[in-house]
Amino acid sequence: MRVLLLCMAGIAPAMAMTPNNEPIQPILPAQITDPAKVELGKQLFFDPRLSRSGFISCNSCHNLSMGGSDNLQTSIGHNWQQGPINSPTVLNSSLNVAQFWDGRAADLKEQAAGPIANPGEMAFTHTLAVDTLRSIPQYSEAFARVYGVQQITIDEVTDAIAEFEETLVTPFSRFDRWLLGDTQAMTEDELRGYQLFKDTGCVACHNGPAAGGNSFQKMGLVSAYETANPAEGVAGLTGQDADRFKFKVPTLRNVELTYPYFHDGAYWTLEEAVDVMARLQLGRQLGDEDIASITAFLKTLTGQQPSFALPILPPSNNATPRPKPFE
Amino acid sequence: MRVLLLCMAGIAPAMAMTPNNEPIQPILPAQITDPAKVELGKQLFFDPRLSRSGFISCNSCHNLSMGGSDNLQTSIGHNWQQGPINSPTVLNSSLNVAQFWDGRAADLKEQAAGPIANPGEMAFTHTLAVDTLRSIPQYSEAFARVYGVQQITIDEVTDAIAEFEETLVTPFSRFDRWLLGDTQAMTEDELRGYQLFKDTGCVACHNGPAAGGNSFQKMGLVSAYETANPAEGVAGLTGQDADRFKFKVPTLRNVELTYPYFHDGAYWTLEEAVDVMARLQLGRQLGDEDIASITAFLKTLTGQQPSFALPILPPSNNATPRPKPFE
Repeated sequence: MRVLLLCMAGIAPAMAMTPNNEPIQPILPAQITDPAKVELGKQLFFDPRLSRSGFISCNSCHNLSMGGSDNLQTSIGHNWQQGPINSPTVLNSSLNVAQFWDGRAADLKEQAAGPIANPGEMAFTHTLAVDTLRSIPQYSEAFARVYGVQQITIDEVTDAIAEFEETLVTPFSRFDRWLLGDTQAMTEDELRGYQLFKDTGCVACHNGPAAGGNSFQKMGLVSAYETANPAEGVAGLTGQDADRFKFKVPTLRNVELTYPYFHDGAYWTLEEAVDVMARLQLGRQLGDEDIASITAFLKTLTGQQPSFALPILPPSNNATPRPKPFE
Repeated sequence: MRVLLLCMAGIAPAMAMTPNNEPIQPILPAQITDPAKVELGKQLFFDPRLSRSGFISCNSCHNLSMGGSDNLQTSIGHNWQQGPINSPTVLNSSLNVAQFWDGRAADLKEQAAGPIANPGEMAFTHTLAVDTLRSIPQYSEAFARVYGVQQITIDEVTDAIAEFEETLVTPFSRFDRWLLGDTQAMTEDELRGYQLFKDTGCVACHNGPAAGGNSFQKMGLVSAYETANPAEGVAGLTGQDADRFKFKVPTLRNVELTYPYFHDGAYWTLEEAVDVMARLQLGRQLGDEDIASITAFLKTLTGQQPSFALPILPPSNNATPRPKPFE
């Protein structure tokens, strides 16, 4: 009704949009209730001693200087192994319905256990990772303080990492400022892009606070997605043919920073990604102008990046197991 | 004279040492005159887009969470190549007489150009690194602001990295507080270790503010150093037989954090390193108690680590060359 009235008053429709009942909601700032746990998790996130080589940390592939991703098609693992799938951003990942592209981890804590022990990623074992941390008195003391435990187990390690990751939200994007009522926060072209994003049907999957992350959908719904990547998505877990190429819908938050796109990282530009999605998922062939407007809208989803001091890690000592990068 | 008087008064000699005219001087805090240049250098130090793979940054091998080193025997380069020599700490490196173990770079600016183009390290070229930065408007604008240049060249890139590295000093160690007159900053055993460090002759090479870094010495002066590492030190540059196994004396600042030790990274504990140095360089066989005291002293050289916000890097865009990790 408000939109109608403004239109009648001669104001352009795009400008007249008001942020009520939108399918995407603002990202809320992190509420930190246990700063010591977050700080411990941050140290662990940056600690390459959770890997066999002593060289790869969580931050290697979820680089918080670069949108929480590595900006590679697929990641580099132990011994320079080529990863099987694009590394998803850790930013706003607490909003995901489940973790990994195929959702095989229920939450961030379960996810954090994966790469440490994956022979193609950090190539360590939980036992060796925990042995390493136990040998370092500063870590033992921090875990005792935060968790009240005498001995560190993988359970506290992944819990602390998840607690840190939960703080990695990106509020205050221009889109969110618009959602919150700042009508000057977006340009007319960006608002037009948002309207197109909704009208074209993108919002059917990319909705909620993360503009995605809350459902699994088949990649190549209308037309097949051509890729050399063998990942089969959820079918790899369920064995069900109906789940082939079903992947978690990625968040579009900070999508300007999280190139290249899709589970295979095959597309480097947002324009290409918008075009492919419209054709393959929605059966729509968008013109260049519409693609440009949607791309302009997507860039308004870049939020305030987490800002914190680089953690200083407690040193190893004579009792700490040595890294094994080359054996 | 003062020492003598105190001794006569029945105070133990170690306690009586006063920090006057000591061969090691305190590290001074960084004086930042151009914060914009330092900030730009910090971004570049953390930017893996200066490597062919898009995965390796200066911070990968000079990790500022870990004493400015990688805590590996020798570093991991592009395609997981095993580096030829132990990665020296970047902390207090501005105090070095020259850079690299063999001193082949005159200063930090010249040093910074090396790893970018080294096929075994970042495996890029200066041209490609500069092309990458030029494609990113935020970098172009920052270089224009800081250097007044229309086009980025490798000269400004390495200059900014060096300017950041010059801030990476570690003042306020317990030893420095003692040097500055705080007689409570060190224990009696640590002071005994310092006296032994001087009496044994360690201080002949490990002196000055960095406790090293200001001369080149033959590794294995009294007895030969046994190692599988083929590095020949300064002789690799001069071809002179007299320069064989001559390496820059490493700083002992933060030595507790910069394990493993020596140019080949062959020794992981300070106790072993002290023992080897005393035998091979000074012809002295130290007892366990003396080694323990010297080790205790060495740990008082850990200074305040540089503290700063993890830099957020400007994103690549459609014009930015793509990383090539696997080709």
